Amino acid sequence: MTQPVAGPGRPALSATARTRHERLREQGRTDRAHLIAVLRAGLIAHLGVVVDGTPMVIPTSYGFDDDTLYLHGSVASRSLAARPAETAQVAETAQACVTITLVDGLVLARSVFEHAVNYRSAMIYGTPRLVTDPAEKLRGLHLLSEHLAPGQWDYARQPSRKELAATSLLALPLDEASVKVRTGPPDDADSPDAALGLWAGELPLISTWGEPVPDAELPAGTAVPPHITARAGTRAFDGDS
Amino acid sequence: MTQPVAGPGRPALSATARTRHERLREQGRTDRAHLIAVLRAGLIAHLGVVVDGTPMVIPTSYGFDDDTLYLHGSVASRSLAARPAETAQVAETAQACVTITLVDGLVLARSVFEHAVNYRSAMIYGTPRLVTDPAEKLRGLHLLSEHLAPGQWDYARQPSRKELAATSLLALPLDEASVKVRTGPPDDADSPDAALGLWAGELPLISTWGEPVPDAELPAGTAVPPHITARAGTRAFDGDS
Repeated sequence: MTQPVAGPGRPALSATARTRHERLREQGRTDRAHLIAVLRAGLIAHLGVVVDGTPMVIPTSYGFDDDTLYLHGSVASRSLAARPAETAQVAETAQACVTITLVDGLVLARSVFEHAVNYRSAMIYGTPRLVTDPAEKLRGLHLLSEHLAPGQWDYARQPSRKELAATSLLALPLDEASVKVRTGPPDDADSPDAALGLWAGELPLISTWGEPVPDAELPAGTAVPPHITARAGTRAFDGDS
Repeated sequence: MTQPVAGPGRPALSATARTRHERLREQGRTDRAHLIAVLRAGLIAHLGVVVDGTPMVIPTSYGFDDDTLYLHGSVASRSLAARPAETAQVAETAQACVTITLVDGLVLARSVFEHAVNYRSAMIYGTPRLVTDPAEKLRGLHLLSEHLAPGQWDYARQPSRKELAATSLLALPLDEASVKVRTGPPDDADSPDAALGLWAGELPLISTWGEPVPDAELPAGTAVPPHITARAGTRAFDGDS
């Protein structure tokens, strides 16, 4: 288990009641570098907000820098923006939990009870802020675009002022987070179940970028740019993308 | 766009204010068969609950039948169980949203603004019920186990009474749900951006089960059972698993 360690120039992730690892203590990670690694490896986030008193979990793309997570947030921002900021209700409902999960494989144990999933997961808590400053919005969208589709920001046409205005972007500070990781074989090798003589181990899940599929409407001979060709055949969710 | 259609012997998914497809109307699916298809293709769910007034989004494995979603729910069930059922607060906080998302690829458009993700996603709303009846719990865990690791329920040792008691299982009715699907190329082939002469198309994301990795503690020569061997090399998230 990793002890709380500050990253370069950054404090360790804060441990609060909701981020303490109560159930799977051995899997907790408190180093900021582990949070960044999960963010780097992931592709989409699940954004949890409370809308009209009920939780909503919305899949959305994201980008980040050392301090801030940026999210596309049309549904969530609508709910944030629709309420007067003065009411006590807002302080509560405006909170969010963003979870990013990567499944690395199945843990096939000798008993059903010990079956598990190998995964990396980050849960980030905070109160998202609707980004209104055009410069920050452009910067946040740049981070988001380059995380999802690296190279496309410079290759494709960048957002117009009108498109920027039509985009809802949320910013969430990377201050309070919980990172959990499970790796390796099942935990029952030294249990009585080992005597059953059953096979046990892992079934890895491998995600790969396929070959680019051109839009059927493209003029014949339109070349695939190298930054896209280079991604084809590489592993997704490995932290290098 | 699929019109609301009842599945065989089942009503169409109910459309409520929170499941109407306000933003991406063309991507909405209201046929129950689409919900089941996403559930069948998915591997883990993101369970959103409200704990102490703040949303939590918890990745968890699941199983299902035609009517009910079953989820491992230690964190969520703790919060459900910890509150007296009589308080008005519970009726609100006990609600959940479960989202299952499959990413199928990136949509690389001629402008950054039109970039998107091809995906299948289901959001299920309701009030989860803690499963206490041992027979239902066994049945729910069977569904969950066979969804995650088909064949293992009969191969591995099944849960003991003690293990059953130690497992928290939540049941959520499959009554109120929203399914969204995006497929195909970018939407800007007929926009002025087509004149830019840029490449545009899709970058598929392909997930495959790898070769089984034996637990290093296994006695030499322990054979991999056929139901695991058969899964290696097959596509994950394609709806057949």
